[in-house]
Amino acid sequence: MRNVLGRELPDTIDGIGELRSYGPPPMPRKSGCISGGGGSPKLLASIRSALAACDVRDGATLSFHHHLRNGDHVMNLVLTEAARMGLRDLRIAPSSIFPVHEPLVGLINAGVIRSIHTAYVSGPVADAIGRGSLCVPAVLQTHGGRARAIESGELAIDVAFIAAPASDDCGNINGVSGPNACGTLGYAMVDARYAKRVVAVTDHLVKYPACPIDITQDCVDFVVPVDSIGDAARIVSGTTRITDDPVGLNIAQSAARIIEAAGLLNDSFSFQTGAGGVSLAVARFVEDGMRRRRVKGSFASGGITGQIVGMLEAGLFDALFDVQCFDLRAVESYRRNRRHQAMSASMYASPSTRGSVADNLDAMILGAAQVDLDFNVNVTTTADGRIIGGSGGHSDTAAGARLAIVTTRLRAGANPKIVESVRTITTPGASVDVVVTEAGIAVNPARDDLADMLKNAGIDTISIARLHDLAIQGSSEDKRPASATKDAPIVALQQYRDGSIIDVVRRTY
Amino acid sequence: MRNVLGRELPDTIDGIGELRSYGPPPMPRKSGCISGGGGSPKLLASIRSALAACDVRDGATLSFHHHLRNGDHVMNLVLTEAARMGLRDLRIAPSSIFPVHEPLVGLINAGVIRSIHTAYVSGPVADAIGRGSLCVPAVLQTHGGRARAIESGELAIDVAFIAAPASDDCGNINGVSGPNACGTLGYAMVDARYAKRVVAVTDHLVKYPACPIDITQDCVDFVVPVDSIGDAARIVSGTTRITDDPVGLNIAQSAARIIEAAGLLNDSFSFQTGAGGVSLAVARFVEDGMRRRRVKGSFASGGITGQIVGMLEAGLFDALFDVQCFDLRAVESYRRNRRHQAMSASMYASPSTRGSVADNLDAMILGAAQVDLDFNVNVTTTADGRIIGGSGGHSDTAAGARLAIVTTRLRAGANPKIVESVRTITTPGASVDVVVTEAGIAVNPARDDLADMLKNAGIDTISIARLHDLAIQGSSEDKRPASATKDAPIVALQQYRDGSIIDVVRRTY
Repeated sequence: MRNVLGRELPDTIDGIGELRSYGPPPMPRKSGCISGGGGSPKLLASIRSALAACDVRDGATLSFHHHLRNGDHVMNLVLTEAARMGLRDLRIAPSSIFPVHEPLVGLINAGVIRSIHTAYVSGPVADAIGRGSLCVPAVLQTHGGRARAIESGELAIDVAFIAAPASDDCGNINGVSGPNACGTLGYAMVDARYAKRVVAVTDHLVKYPACPIDITQDCVDFVVPVDSIGDAARIVSGTTRITDDPVGLNIAQSAARIIEAAGLLNDSFSFQTGAGGVSLAVARFVEDGMRRRRVKGSFASGGITGQIVGMLEAGLFDALFDVQCFDLRAVESYRRNRRHQAMSASMYASPSTRGSVADNLDAMILGAAQVDLDFNVNVTTTADGRIIGGSGGHSDTAAGARLAIVTTRLRAGANPKIVESVRTITTPGASVDVVVTEAGIAVNPARDDLADMLKNAGIDTISIARLHDLAIQGSSEDKRPASATKDAPIVALQQYRDGSIIDVVRRTY
Repeated sequence: MRNVLGRELPDTIDGIGELRSYGPPPMPRKSGCISGGGGSPKLLASIRSALAACDVRDGATLSFHHHLRNGDHVMNLVLTEAARMGLRDLRIAPSSIFPVHEPLVGLINAGVIRSIHTAYVSGPVADAIGRGSLCVPAVLQTHGGRARAIESGELAIDVAFIAAPASDDCGNINGVSGPNACGTLGYAMVDARYAKRVVAVTDHLVKYPACPIDITQDCVDFVVPVDSIGDAARIVSGTTRITDDPVGLNIAQSAARIIEAAGLLNDSFSFQTGAGGVSLAVARFVEDGMRRRRVKGSFASGGITGQIVGMLEAGLFDALFDVQCFDLRAVESYRRNRRHQAMSASMYASPSTRGSVADNLDAMILGAAQVDLDFNVNVTTTADGRIIGGSGGHSDTAAGARLAIVTTRLRAGANPKIVESVRTITTPGASVDVVVTEAGIAVNPARDDLADMLKNAGIDTISIARLHDLAIQGSSEDKRPASATKDAPIVALQQYRDGSIIDVVRRTY
């Protein structure tokens, strides 16, 4: 054959196969985005235009991310507009859902939203799920399991909406500029790479290119400027306070002593903790230990707080891996320090990559709504079955870390938190190494080695059964067995990180 | 059913389907990489171990990248070891091949290497391809077309070997540390993401984590420390000299005047040029124009030189997009300046992303071995058919840029470079806007608008036919039509960026 430029080609070649002949237009010249002079074809005037341009139809799967946390406006904006357009039966897959997303309840009841996949849900939407308002039970994932599901195609996203603190007209996005700068965009990075269509929604359209870029233009189809993507005051807090409660401080100090006793405080030490008062206190005590031992650790990871940034800047860690900044100091650090490194949700915690950061963790500090005699942890529901969150990264980091420490009080008010059997299993006891309470420390019997190390360090331990006994003393343990509601409809599935179902949540009222 | 933790689950749920019950071990605890104490399971002792661990068999496809250019040791190391292990019929897919890869000739002749996909090849391997030594014709791609082929699955890579200037034991790789620091790893980023197995080969194993990370651990299967990945002296040059030849300077100045006349020197200006003497001179004249007009442009892209870094630092551009650093100053800039941004080969130039940087370019300066009356450009072979390179990013940037300028002398020695019909079409004339020589400027007739702009700016142009006449005056143009060798065996296919075949290269001797 002869191609349009007159060159003779064979039809096939052994070892290569059929040849495709060059012939314009194989693609329009300048097929992609063109910033500058003529304006970018990616730039759309409204959310409605984007939904139309992405050809969103009834039953489509739309994803969102939660870096703006309880200040996020984007999910409400998009889904309200979808409802106005008459769309129905949508499946939504936000990385987390907060009280600010209350408008979704009406959309669930109206049939606009048919099902939900998410790694964390609290507030009115959680209550709606608990009431069985969805047509299909919600699927509660882990942060790493969500990334795995997206990457494997198990959770196929039609359109990912990215709340973009800054974007240029070609869809380069960064998290460090604009009125709602929130830092790294680790959860959104996975959606941006795998969704069929990707829409950047921004209130800070900047001149091309939006360096330093967190999500690149080659992943983004459309850019929609809006008045506001969020309420900065609810996104990040300028300060995060360490607990000053003596009980909390006592628990935190015990956790730090366990890390030291386990021999982890050396130059390869790595650490993750949350943003709560006790978690921050643990970090403070760990910091004291590192300074005392003159240790320079390897890394801290997770959602990153200013306190952890302080440890990086003090030379106590070589680097930070950050999937989501928890406060303004973390955002500022990420902006200017190249050792404060973004990580995608997949790199953070997916069980199916070639090695996640969670798998490299030495010590992980975890919370719990309930812990049971098998060390199973519930962070999904209250004792009476109300949905209050979900795994987030809980199960992922517990599975990965050398030392997974659950810190919890014996009771919440009059209710015991150390129970015979947790209402909902979020994280299996097999990946929980030790439970620290104000009344004592219980080591998982599967970790004899850890028990020995604590003993050698002079740290007393007691059995989880004993902790349970102490917890129910003077309180009336909810004795309803898990089977009490076994005939009630299932309203949510608690998925483990590998996609299997570790528990179900049933309707309680 | 009941899962191993005793929780009752239904077998299926309407709207979700069959449930998979949680049951350990769904995955081993700590499935991934664990740095620190016990040593990483990714760390292997030798290239041989890596080839075995990746289960490389006869006929496998192995990929490499060329950031170490003519100083690369890794491709020779790996393929020599593959030969020692008795492997045969390998397909190799390096992003480019240089004279340093001469040992591959023996491996081709011995049947170890059966076929080659690459975007650029020069030196002894090019000559071997020209002699027809491969069992299957080589496939010459473009940089963007290679990324497209990998991403689409058309070029499926079994194992990608990454020459890593620095790596930790979990496979986090950076290009800015170590004795062979070469800067960004843009070509390797695509291989790392899509290959079935990824091996980091490094001579600088650093403490975990290897921040600032260019390729992350979640993509890397194995890490192999070796004595040396390259010869630093041949990787980057401390200085790159602007031509001082009056003919070259004249051509460069004309090119810069055309950019200005085309109205591109404004605050959204973007620019790419190569590392040759004339290319650098164009950048110098463009810089003069920008300073004179007090323009702050948008970005420069490509392989980045120190000269372009100087323009960034002088505030003449907002940012650099860098797929490969061409010299030490560029490496140093990439190391410390967040506006000097890495880009993958896909983001750079793939025709099938949602918009590449090449598509955003205003002005692109291109070279040519030959240009013909249809403005087709040959950078693949000499006039007599010897393979001397290939597209690299030539066709990609020509297709994307608003203004694609070919700079060339009329003749190379006694041989005309402006010819009736190029020996091999690399880049179609449809994407070449103007040809600049020392004897005049020819505008592609398809670009009347450009001709008008030049006229308005007082820049004289002549026809390409006239340039051809001038080129052949006093020289003996090689009059052999392309069909003269039409019965000779095909030794290489010149693939256009979309995967179609734009020309073939036939054996000449």
